[in-house]
Formats: sequence, C-alpha cells, structure tokens
Amino acid sequence: MKKHLYFTGFMASGKSRTGRALADRLGRPFVDTDNVIVERAGKSISEIFEQEGEAAFRKMERDVIAEIAQSEKPLVVSLGGGALTQAENLKVIRENGTIIRLWAKPEVLSERIGRKNTRPLLANLSDEERLEKIKQMLKDREKNYANADFSVESTNDYSETHVTERIMHMLKFWESHALDVHPSEGGRYPIFIGKNIVPDAAIMLEGLRLAPTYEFLICTDTTIAKEQNTKLSELRGQAGRCPIFKFQAGEGHKTLHNLNQLYSFMLHRGYTRKSCLLQFSGGVVGDMAGFGAATYQRGIPFVQFPTTLLSMVDSSVGGKVAVNHAEGKNMIGAFYQPKAVVCDISVLNTLPPTEYLAGLAEIVKYGVIYDEEFFTYLENNVEKIKAHDFDVLKHMIFRSCQIKAEVVGIDEKEAGLRAILNYGHTFGHAIEKLTHYELYSHGIAVSLGMRVAARAAVLLGKLSKEDEQRQNKLLDDLGFPKTYNTDVEAAWAAMAVDKKAEKGTRVYILPTKIGKVEKVCNIDKGIIADAWKAIQASEV
Amino acid sequence: MKKHLYFTGFMASGKSRTGRALADRLGRPFVDTDNVIVERAGKSISEIFEQEGEAAFRKMERDVIAEIAQSEKPLVVSLGGGALTQAENLKVIRENGTIIRLWAKPEVLSERIGRKNTRPLLANLSDEERLEKIKQMLKDREKNYANADFSVESTNDYSETHVTERIMHMLKFWESHALDVHPSEGGRYPIFIGKNIVPDAAIMLEGLRLAPTYEFLICTDTTIAKEQNTKLSELRGQAGRCPIFKFQAGEGHKTLHNLNQLYSFMLHRGYTRKSCLLQFSGGVVGDMAGFGAATYQRGIPFVQFPTTLLSMVDSSVGGKVAVNHAEGKNMIGAFYQPKAVVCDISVLNTLPPTEYLAGLAEIVKYGVIYDEEFFTYLENNVEKIKAHDFDVLKHMIFRSCQIKAEVVGIDEKEAGLRAILNYGHTFGHAIEKLTHYELYSHGIAVSLGMRVAARAAVLLGKLSKEDEQRQNKLLDDLGFPKTYNTDVEAAWAAMAVDKKAEKGTRVYILPTKIGKVEKVCNIDKGIIADAWKAIQASEV
Repeated sequence: MKKHLYFTGFMASGKSRTGRALADRLGRPFVDTDNVIVERAGKSISEIFEQEGEAAFRKMERDVIAEIAQSEKPLVVSLGGGALTQAENLKVIRENGTIIRLWAKPEVLSERIGRKNTRPLLANLSDEERLEKIKQMLKDREKNYANADFSVESTNDYSETHVTERIMHMLKFWESHALDVHPSEGGRYPIFIGKNIVPDAAIMLEGLRLAPTYEFLICTDTTIAKEQNTKLSELRGQAGRCPIFKFQAGEGHKTLHNLNQLYSFMLHRGYTRKSCLLQFSGGVVGDMAGFGAATYQRGIPFVQFPTTLLSMVDSSVGGKVAVNHAEGKNMIGAFYQPKAVVCDISVLNTLPPTEYLAGLAEIVKYGVIYDEEFFTYLENNVEKIKAHDFDVLKHMIFRSCQIKAEVVGIDEKEAGLRAILNYGHTFGHAIEKLTHYELYSHGIAVSLGMRVAARAAVLLGKLSKEDEQRQNKLLDDLGFPKTYNTDVEAAWAAMAVDKKAEKGTRVYILPTKIGKVEKVCNIDKGIIADAWKAIQASEV
Repeated sequence: MKKHLYFTGFMASGKSRTGRALADRLGRPFVDTDNVIVERAGKSISEIFEQEGEAAFRKMERDVIAEIAQSEKPLVVSLGGGALTQAENLKVIRENGTIIRLWAKPEVLSERIGRKNTRPLLANLSDEERLEKIKQMLKDREKNYANADFSVESTNDYSETHVTERIMHMLKFWESHALDVHPSEGGRYPIFIGKNIVPDAAIMLEGLRLAPTYEFLICTDTTIAKEQNTKLSELRGQAGRCPIFKFQAGEGHKTLHNLNQLYSFMLHRGYTRKSCLLQFSGGVVGDMAGFGAATYQRGIPFVQFPTTLLSMVDSSVGGKVAVNHAEGKNMIGAFYQPKAVVCDISVLNTLPPTEYLAGLAEIVKYGVIYDEEFFTYLENNVEKIKAHDFDVLKHMIFRSCQIKAEVVGIDEKEAGLRAILNYGHTFGHAIEKLTHYELYSHGIAVSLGMRVAARAAVLLGKLSKEDEQRQNKLLDDLGFPKTYNTDVEAAWAAMAVDKKAEKGTRVYILPTKIGKVEKVCNIDKGIIADAWKAIQASEV
C-alpha cells in the first residue's frame, strides 16, 4: 500500500465523514486540506478567494499538499474540490499515495446538499435546478475525478462501517497494483499482478465502477475452460454468475467466423452497450475477444485476465486486438484498450512448460531490445525462473509490461519506436506461417527468430559475436529449442506479406548490443539466407 | 476563397520563395511576419530573444499577426516557425485565411540547410546529425503543421511555377471547403460541398498528403457502379486508375460476410497499411466500407464521397461505421473518422426521388431538433428544394453537417446530447425492422417516426398541436408518405432491442417545440400505442 490515502469527490459525497472513519479504522491521523488552509490563513476559503484571489489560494493549497506528502506518518487526507486540477498536485499525490474517489448518485448529492443549503455554489436553487446543476458540474469535473485509483459509492443506505470496509477491501486488492498504462491516445488503466487475486475480482470491478452498472460476460476458450476450471468458476462467482462464452482454442480458430459466434451469443442474450467483457484467456483468444469488445455495438469495456505468461507480458499493453485472415495473421483488427489487466500468477501453475517458455521468449526479448540490466537480472535468476518463483515472476511481468508501456507510450501507433517490439517477429512469423501455426507457439517461433536476427546483425557487423552468444546462452539455459530447418526461399516469400512492412520494403529489427536494437531496411537476400543458418540443425 | 493566404512549414521549406511567387501570381503584397518584427524592433530575432526573452517576441508576433489579419487588402503571409503554437494566433489566422503548409523530405531540407549552414539551430552538424535532428524536429512540430488546410510539396525537381500552379489548383478546390469537423476524440477533417468537384479530387488527395504516399482503392456498390458510372470513372482517374471493389447494393448485404470479401480483395492485392480507401457510395455501403477501413490491418485512412443526399447530411459527421447482424442493425461497428468528406452535388442529379426524400427527412429532423430558423428556411424554400436548386442544396447540406457536428462535438460517444439525433429513429427503426428493411428506406422510416414521436409529445402535453402540424405540413409539402399501418404490439417488441436503449429502459426523443427536443424515458405503453395512430391510414 502506498503511504497516504487521499479522498476526492464532489461536495457532500462524504469525504470528511468517510475519511475520518477510515482514519480511525487504520489508526491514522486525518487531515482536511481546506481546513488546514483556513486555519493558517485565519479566514474562510470564500474570504481568501475574495481578498487574495484564486491564484493565491491555489498556491497555499499546493504548499499544504506538498507538506502533507512529506509527512513520515501515513495519513488519510481529504482533498479540496479543485486540488486535482493542478498537475503539480496530482504528481505529488500520485507518487505518495492512493487516490480514492467517493461518489454518490446526483439525486443523493442533491438531497444531502438541499438538507443543509449552506453550499454557496448551490444555494437558493429549487430541487430541480439543484439536481440539474449538480449533473452538469459532475460532468465538467469527471476528468479530475478520473484521476482516482478507485471509486467507492457513498449511499444513504450504507452505514459508515460498510463503506469503510469496502475501502479496506479495495485497498487490499490494490496492493497488487503494479503499474498504470497511459496509452498514447489518452486515458489510463491499471495492471494488477498478484497471487490468487481472481477470487477478489468483484471488489476491483466495483472500484473501477464497472459493477454493478455493467452486465458481465466471460470469454474464454475450450481448453482453458477445462484446465482452469476452478479459477474460471471463481471469476464467474465474482461477476454475478454471468454467462461464459467459449471460443474453440487455438490460433487456427481466431477467425471472423468464430468472432461472429460471440456477437450472436451476446445479441441473443440481449447484451446492450452497458455490457463488460471479462476476457479470461491467453493472447490468441484475448486478441479475438478484445476485438469483439472493440466492435460489439461500436465498443464496450473489457477487462483482461491473462492466463498465460505470454499474454501477461505481451497482450497486457498496447491495445492491439485482431483476428486472422486466411491471407495472414491479425489482418483484421483495431487498437482498443482494456479497463484493467489482472495478472493472477496462480493461473500459471497449470501452464504447460512450452507455454511458459513462450512467455519467457518475450521477456528475454524486452531485455535484448531495451534493458541490459533486466537481461542480467534474467541471467542471474535462471533457476528461480524455471521454478516459477513468485517474486521473480512478479518482477519479470512488471518490468516487461513497464518496458512495453514505455515503448508504446512514447510512440504513435507503430510509427517508430514501437517497431522495436517486433524484434524476432519478422523471422518468427515466417516460421509460424511455414509450420501452419501448429508446430511452434508464437513465443517459441519468436525465440528462434531472435537467434536469426542476432546472426543477421553479426553478419552485418552490427553486433559482436559475444553478444549473440550471450543472448543465445540465456535462451539455451531457459530451455528453448535451438533449431528449425528453414526452407530459405519459402521463408523469404512468407516474410513478404508481413503487414509491418511498407510495400516493397523489408524491415528488420536487429540488436547492436544487449539492451539496444535498430531498424534496418532491405538487407541483402544472401545475408538473410545465411542468417537462417543460425538455427539450422547441421550448423548449430 | 478566404481573404489571406498563410504559409507555414519548416525552415528551408521555401515559405518566402514560394510565398513571393504566389503573391506575384495573384498580384498581392507579400508579408513575412519575422521580417516585420525585425524591422519594427530594429534588431534581429536572436537579439530580441536574447535581450527581451521569448515571451516578448511572442507578444510582438501576436500583435503583427492580429494587424495583418485586419488588412483590407488580401495578402500572402509567411509565418514564423512558432506562430501556430499560439492558440490566439491560430484563431485569428483560421478566421481570416487559408493555411498552406509547404513540406519537403527531410533529406531535401537537410541538403538545402547544409548548403548555407546559417541556421543557428542546425549549424555545425555533420550531414548525418543534421538529418537526424531535422527528423526529430519535424516530428515534434507535426502537431502545429497539422493546422494547415492543405500541404504542398516543395522539391528541388519542381520549378517555382510548378509549385505555384499546384497551390492555385488546391485553392480552387478548397473553394468548396464548407466546414471542418472536430471529433470529440481529437483531430479535424474537412467537408467539401461543390458542383462537379470529383474530377478534381486528385489535387485534394495531394493537398491532404494522401497522394502519392498511399495506395488507393475505391469501394462502391453494384447499383452505384451502374448509375454513377461516369462519376466513378472520373474518381478512378483521379486515384491513379486504382482497383474498384463493389459490394452488393442494399441494407440486406451490409453483413460481416460481405465485409470479409473486401478484406480478401485487399489482401489478395497486397494492400498494406499505407492504403487509403475511397468510399464512393451512400450510407449503407459507406458504413460497411468505413468499418472496413477502421479494421483493415487495425485501421487505414479513408475518404468519403457520399452519393446520396442522406449520406451527405448524415454519414459525413459522427464517425459511426458498422455492419448489421441478423439480430439488429449496426450491431458490429466502431467510431472511426474519415480524412475528408467530398459532397459533389452533381451526383444527386441521377438520384431516385425516394432517395432524395430520404435525405430531406434527416434535414427536416435537424430543423426540428435544433434550429427553428433552419426549419423556417426549409419552409420558405420548398419549391427550390424540390427543384434541386444548387445554392439551397449547398446550404442545407452545410447547415445539416454543421448542426450534427455541433451536437456530436460537444458530446462524448452518445452519452447525452448526441441522443437527440435519434429523433424519429426509435419508431423509424421499428418500422424498418417490421418491413424487413425493404419497404421503406431509412430516411422515409425516420420521417414516419418523426410523426409518431411528435404525436407522442402532443399526447404527453409536451408539444403544441400547432407545432406537430407545422412539422407534418413541411413533410407533406416535401412529398413524404403519411401513413404506415403499424401492428402496435409488433412495433413495441421491435423497439425493445434497440441498442440505443439501456437494458429495460425505453428512451424516446420528443420535440417540445420546433427547434427543441428532450429525452423521455419509459413512456406508458398505451400512449405509445396511441401515438402510432398518427400514421394510421384510417386516422390521417
């Protein structure tokens, strides 16, 4: 849990009352920033505004918030209504604490405010006018409230203890909060990484205001439904015993035809736009379910519960959703972001070893393309990685998601830097295609592709032989296959329709050292043919 | 043409040279804002920056730009590099002129800059460093340059006369520029309305930098391919004689299955992400082609060439793209914005009368829901409307797009105000469904739906009988059908799965006077049954 707990919310949403109750429950001091300012200035907030102007008030507020953040003792803090509009405050608060939004229905707020009738902005209005004004103000301020980590409803039906208990429950879940992703098109969503957290998913859905507003549907596949039967039941229990839709497992079933069965399933059951799809699966079905969410009635929210290591480190970030076409992988798709990603490491217990390897391939990739320190961490933890050590897994997933988020976040849709994520993929995709997506999983194909790419870099004099060997040794130690006897001509043709290439240009991502790659266009066909020998059985 | 012509672009893109040439060509004075500032200050720009700071320079620049805008005489103006970063300047410039971006490939810019080596920001760099720095600076400034109305390439291969002629040609096309749409998710695209402008589309595609970078594909349908054969050939001539894909015409063919044929067509022909879809069709195929563009390889640009009045006033704004599902219309889709909309009114010459009426239904709708003045304009121009008068058509399309843009722009995806666009649609969709999308076009069904909605409003005491009659009289005068004998129970059931309704809630948009509507939930079934009588043959 981060140090301080901050409350934000509309007037009369109960920030002080609930804040105090939570502070009592946790044995912490409670601070109301507005009260501190009033005390220091020796006059009311309206007087400060009148006599010194809003800028002066905001300055005092910034000072108070910065001071509070410094407090050694963990505090519960109630924030003034405008505090989160200041970027500087938001930064300080995010670094030092968790932001909790208290919310209530406009009717409830209006009734509470009307009872006292002391709020200057809303005084002397008829009930109807007050309600309308509150709705408008809530709409205007939504952008600020959206900065909260999670939200709790404050209704007149709930006792203070009930609300406090819900917050405690959410705080417990949010201990698994590993990072926030900020997609380049705006917005933000959390990634959770924890042990056995699916059985608490309901409180997360409530904290993100998906429950109880939205109707849920779980998407999974036939294999996972068998292998992860218990977890799936737990999730279903958390989502109000909602229907489960099962895709046929496997890349070959990732088609528009199968996706249409999801649409039909949902339409038959009367799912409206107020529906939320919980995608409990690996990346293949995840891509398809995500594309379903992106396009069902022009887009409904979805939450990812990745069930493989690969999907935890790859599909959690980037917003890529798609289905395959007979002419190539992922040819039909969109960019569409989830509302949250929940990586429950416990689901990996039953993961087949090859699937675990597939995830490790991407993790090694992040080290090679971006972060030598992380690569070294992997080298130093080979045994723990093989033993599924929880802390090592958690760090690997966290750092992989973080690297991917950094690469994707500072880039527009695949224009530049994002392309480095394709390291090993140009060759890997060709292998997948030549083996009809059957012999190797995507991850294993990528690991082979990385060996070929590294060799190409060595042949071009861009990478040292030592670094090639260092990469390959880690892959070897982790248990990756070393060979695939490529039909070089067929592979060359298979690479041609890769959609990542502009027409007529073949683009390769090649390492220049561990932790760094670069984009190289139109490498001589002879060199590529030689590079394929890196995984030729006779040569290894 | 707007009064002034402003040039923006990177250093060495030729703003002064081309600006002067264009000014000569047009017989206008040429002004360089930086020169004016230097003259007035009596020192160089670097000296102003050094001695007085950037803020002082920006102030001088704002003053100069504001003054220039006031000039009675039309000018050609070259803007300093940072001018468009200031929101205030952008506003003044947009109001008074057309912004032209001059661009050149980074390699060309670097070569030009290197030749002189006098630009302080880029001095004393190796050729490679200079090129890298230029690429980075272009990326950083792209947001500002994107404010230009259109772009022209300045290469060393083209003579100054050639560049000037291209600009003249673009200016000619931009005379049809009616408005810009600013979607709520950001960005901006132009709508052109003109007579016989398709035969000049190539220059527009170049001005928007789609040609020659992108490979084109035209999407149309079997009926339009016959009826609009000439226009279609003209468009194809403008798009480099590109392939044409023809959907089967008709709402019944707006399916995922048919869309998949487009994907296959494009993949077989090797279309990459650097493709641009030109959609030459009415709304039905437009929805499908637009969804195709939204999802082909996760999204490619598309330009709309609406061929019906309905699609000009309805599909041009809002970004809604979709296909139907057996369970209901538009159930699979996305929000996706075109790069431009070209309404060539000449295509309406061959439009069947019922299709023309279908467009008028939406136009009348805009009057009823939003703008009594516009409604009055329609009442006063009934004969001209029926005679396809160009100026009246142009104004109707312009104002309809503008109203839709206002309603959509100040709202997030259908959360609130946008719902008013559904006026007449709840009932209209039910009619379409009951008649299997065959008997009435969407527009005619909506016109009948408006009569039912107005009656419901009268029955609820929300609308005066006079206003109901005023709406219906305009519909009558324009030649709309007055009756459809509804099976009230079947219609009630048909309305239930409308995706615009939250589950269990039936939402109606009802007029309260001409120019104003409101949202009403859960009206008594008996009142709805009575409202249907507004179009019962026995009652009219």
